[in-house]
Amino acid sequence: VENNFIISAVMTIFSKDRVLFDYQSILIYGKDLTDVLPPPHALCVVFPQDKNELVSLVHFANEHRLSLVPSGGRTGYSGGAVAKQNDIIVSFEKMNHIVDFNAADKTLHCEAGVTLKAIQDYAKQLDLFYPVDFASAAECQIGGNIATNAGGLHVIRYGSTRQWVMGLTVITGRGDILGCNKGLVKNATGYDFRHLFIGSEGTLGFITHAILKLTALPKKTKVILFSVSNNQAITILLSVLQQAVSLIAFEFFCHTAMQCVMQAEQIAFPFQKNTDFYGLFEYESDDTVDLIIEKILQDQLNKNNISEILMSHHEKEANHLWRYRKGISRSLKKYFPYKFDLAVLPSTIFSFMRAAADLLRNKYAALETVWFGHVGDGNLHVNVLKPETVSEKDFAVRCAEISETIYAVIQHFNGSICAEHGVGLLKKPYLHYSKSDSEIQYMRGIKNIFDPNHVMNPGKLI
Amino acid sequence: VENNFIISAVMTIFSKDRVLFDYQSILIYGKDLTDVLPPPHALCVVFPQDKNELVSLVHFANEHRLSLVPSGGRTGYSGGAVAKQNDIIVSFEKMNHIVDFNAADKTLHCEAGVTLKAIQDYAKQLDLFYPVDFASAAECQIGGNIATNAGGLHVIRYGSTRQWVMGLTVITGRGDILGCNKGLVKNATGYDFRHLFIGSEGTLGFITHAILKLTALPKKTKVILFSVSNNQAITILLSVLQQAVSLIAFEFFCHTAMQCVMQAEQIAFPFQKNTDFYGLFEYESDDTVDLIIEKILQDQLNKNNISEILMSHHEKEANHLWRYRKGISRSLKKYFPYKFDLAVLPSTIFSFMRAAADLLRNKYAALETVWFGHVGDGNLHVNVLKPETVSEKDFAVRCAEISETIYAVIQHFNGSICAEHGVGLLKKPYLHYSKSDSEIQYMRGIKNIFDPNHVMNPGKLI
Repeated sequence: VENNFIISAVMTIFSKDRVLFDYQSILIYGKDLTDVLPPPHALCVVFPQDKNELVSLVHFANEHRLSLVPSGGRTGYSGGAVAKQNDIIVSFEKMNHIVDFNAADKTLHCEAGVTLKAIQDYAKQLDLFYPVDFASAAECQIGGNIATNAGGLHVIRYGSTRQWVMGLTVITGRGDILGCNKGLVKNATGYDFRHLFIGSEGTLGFITHAILKLTALPKKTKVILFSVSNNQAITILLSVLQQAVSLIAFEFFCHTAMQCVMQAEQIAFPFQKNTDFYGLFEYESDDTVDLIIEKILQDQLNKNNISEILMSHHEKEANHLWRYRKGISRSLKKYFPYKFDLAVLPSTIFSFMRAAADLLRNKYAALETVWFGHVGDGNLHVNVLKPETVSEKDFAVRCAEISETIYAVIQHFNGSICAEHGVGLLKKPYLHYSKSDSEIQYMRGIKNIFDPNHVMNPGKLI
Repeated sequence: VENNFIISAVMTIFSKDRVLFDYQSILIYGKDLTDVLPPPHALCVVFPQDKNELVSLVHFANEHRLSLVPSGGRTGYSGGAVAKQNDIIVSFEKMNHIVDFNAADKTLHCEAGVTLKAIQDYAKQLDLFYPVDFASAAECQIGGNIATNAGGLHVIRYGSTRQWVMGLTVITGRGDILGCNKGLVKNATGYDFRHLFIGSEGTLGFITHAILKLTALPKKTKVILFSVSNNQAITILLSVLQQAVSLIAFEFFCHTAMQCVMQAEQIAFPFQKNTDFYGLFEYESDDTVDLIIEKILQDQLNKNNISEILMSHHEKEANHLWRYRKGISRSLKKYFPYKFDLAVLPSTIFSFMRAAADLLRNKYAALETVWFGHVGDGNLHVNVLKPETVSEKDFAVRCAEISETIYAVIQHFNGSICAEHGVGLLKKPYLHYSKSDSEIQYMRGIKNIFDPNHVMNPGKLI
């Protein structure tokens, strides 16, 4: 089919001003934060305003065997939203309205293009809480959050995005509109497609609307930043804390991460003495809990498990301490990092880490790696930094090799090659390290049911 | 295929003593608690001891196009575990072992035939809590709980079974063993089959093992039984309580339910005065919360919203108060009830109830109905009692007619025809009141992927 024909046909579905086809727009809307992939290619970018336009587009794409690529906040790290060939990029930027709030049920109905931050703020203004949070909150969109079952900083207490989705409206690859679950708390009427679409990375259909559950704001919280000389100490602290208080977050990061974030954010080293690892936790505070925490920390200091601690006394200080953790990803950007997003059982995270670190040290001693992650969820982000002297292409080849090494260890630990970033394009070649051949076969079968002509985000995930 | 051939072939898969084919055994293992269905028919009952035996059976069933019907604790109310024709009944009674407990991750690995009560007790003995609970806990099995995403009494605080399943091992209708999620907290590697199998009622495959998450025991709890003169008062109380304290359960039931349970359990009427409705709630108690609750209740008494209250002072009293609610289902058994298991948005439960009650009163004034349910989840159990003078057959016809009436209202409310009991055989003709035609088509497509020859619990759900 000729490109001009396609573009004019698309313009009849959308108004003219909602179709862009200049290369600059394709560069913007056709890629996410994944650095190691080739630049995007696409026919055009469209900006639907309602789900019916999208239905028309899906029917048109089926007729002419075109590919549609969803484009949300484009903060992904797996190339799940990258346009590859003569794709039509579907931006949800104009579907960014909060449709309704049900005060009695504490549910919020919104379009897929609303940013996570807008949802968090809307909730807060109602004295409520949407508890999913991560560093890209201001840019990422709820549709993308749901399509990757985004996790983030509060999973230890509040679970991943999945737990907060009470309903979805989706357009399947056949162009059907499905209203999945419609906000019900209980609904045992067979296969729950809501949960199938959560984490499906736009490969079965596109999410146009979501019903989200809000919850009560946590009481006043406090943040503790601490340093430790060995990672065993982190496990011990986590376990002692979990038995005593309600943690909202528990994070760790290595000294290189600390150095990068200090430089990028222009903030000072917060401790007296360098150590190998640092950690941060947040908890719901009251006088009783504060005393318990104080006792635990004093005990851990006495035992030389923890080296130093810093505690927030008000929100501003809390935000400042969080910068040392939240700024890491951003601070690594300039090193062109290859990002691993690994998960194992929380109980095995440090033995996994030891095994992986030994391997990397032995086989790739010249490469600098940055380690951080969500200890309580068993989720480790390992970033391999590109040495200045190595070309991007050579680095990509090297990283493919490292992937096989690391993922073999993940497989040995029965872990996941993608904890919270999704599979996308980047991790697809390695899916078999986490899923069996028959699981992948069943995934293909399901893809064919919802999207028989492979028009929805083709080439991603499977 | 000849029945004798099948039975001898099955005996080569299982040992002889694990195949029963006398009618008495088929009567026991081939039906659940659904009264209004015809008696079960089956070739035999088999008792697998491990998943490999089950794989052999599924392959055999595929070769000869036989039907396999899962048989757990058989406490269902929708005929999801009823044998219909020349089925082979697969009892999980001998797969009743807790395989492993991971103390650091607080996860329990068990076979599908373990009873809910055994899991609850195992957790308690470790000072932990498996929070799903309902009246049939001692008989029902975790495999069945998962296959129907069982809800129960604590959903308002802890969610349904889905929320506690960290991993599943399933045998699909093609005879493949899938290990779904393996206990990970975070895992974004595409379609999460764990969530597809939860609530699938054995139609895609059979669950053989589960990894369950345990949590901390709630602090000391207190139970309050109360009476109200109108159902608006229940909504108000629920809303006031939810803003102030952490509820573990919030239930209501009508006066007829009270009468039935008193008679069946031989317990006295607990109040001075009859009212139309009664309620029960349980909360995590401490001195501060107790004062808040006392104030709320006093206020509601003053406003004449609540008529009378009874409060538990220790566990024995709490258990006694719970009998008025937990005994209801059992007490109705002798009236041959037709059970509706409805859900709407929690915020609309009483407007739905009014609409449904008006309809029933106008069209079926002669029929006695019993109303109870989980208000906080929007889940209403309406039981229509068979009049002694009406035959079982005539009653079934009448109930089919009532179903159409009630489900039309459910559809109008965007509700669910099955909140927590599942669809099974009984509700299958009415599925279209909750699911669109295209959703049902996609469900069929998925069934065909996992079970192309329809050997797994055929005729149920879709």
